[in-house]
Amino acid sequence: MRDALFRGMTRFSDFQRSLGLASNVLAKRLDGFVENGLMEQRVHPEHPDQQEYVPTDKGRDLKPVVLALTAWGDRWAAPNGPPVTFEHEGCGGKVEAHLLCLKCGRSPDLAHVVAKPTRSRRRRS
Amino acid sequence: MRDALFRGMTRFSDFQRSLGLASNVLAKRLDGFVENGLMEQRVHPEHPDQQEYVPTDKGRDLKPVVLALTAWGDRWAAPNGPPVTFEHEGCGGKVEAHLLCLKCGRSPDLAHVVAKPTRSRRRRS
Repeated sequence: MRDALFRGMTRFSDFQRSLGLASNVLAKRLDGFVENGLMEQRVHPEHPDQQEYVPTDKGRDLKPVVLALTAWGDRWAAPNGPPVTFEHEGCGGKVEAHLLCLKCGRSPDLAHVVAKPTRSRRRRS
Repeated sequence: MRDALFRGMTRFSDFQRSLGLASNVLAKRLDGFVENGLMEQRVHPEHPDQQEYVPTDKGRDLKPVVLALTAWGDRWAAPNGPPVTFEHEGCGGKVEAHLLCLKCGRSPDLAHVVAKPTRSRRRRS
């Protein structure tokens, strides 16, 4: 998902080169993404003999999750330093996931973020 | 982890009530968190016959990941509406995970966030 989301990768052969996975393992994983609505499978426009895998809106919405998880990994599980950084295309700035309080506008201390059960669970129309 | 991180839960019996897991399954899961440095196991100060499980700094740092993943779930996998919201304790405001560009200070469009490999992978001292 990360290669697809952040590097614009779409082709089976490119995912395989990037991830170094066996074909059957990669195929199973990509099929899983398609089944779960995270990717769409379609014929590659320039290589009609090949399929491409393109993230759906549901898949693209995982970007903030990948950023947050990568930040955690950079801090706690990257003895050789972060493998990638995330960049604001065009602007060139570094992009990070931050917590934001919608009321006071500040980034709250992690110790002061608590979960509250939602009182009225409404049906989505 | 979510109950521990956002509800201050520490006792085996409370996790069990909240999650509805069999004792052996829950014990295995908590042991895994301890082994991976996400939680510390210690004697409960008020109930010396019981163990409590308390998130470490490494565990607490997962909060932004849980927020980002919950936001994704709320949007794509919560037909009855969000089960919880995250609140800035004291202030009472709703807390959300946002992407922030450190250069322009804006929240970049997801389509414009790309990953760049880090050139020099340095060793952490």
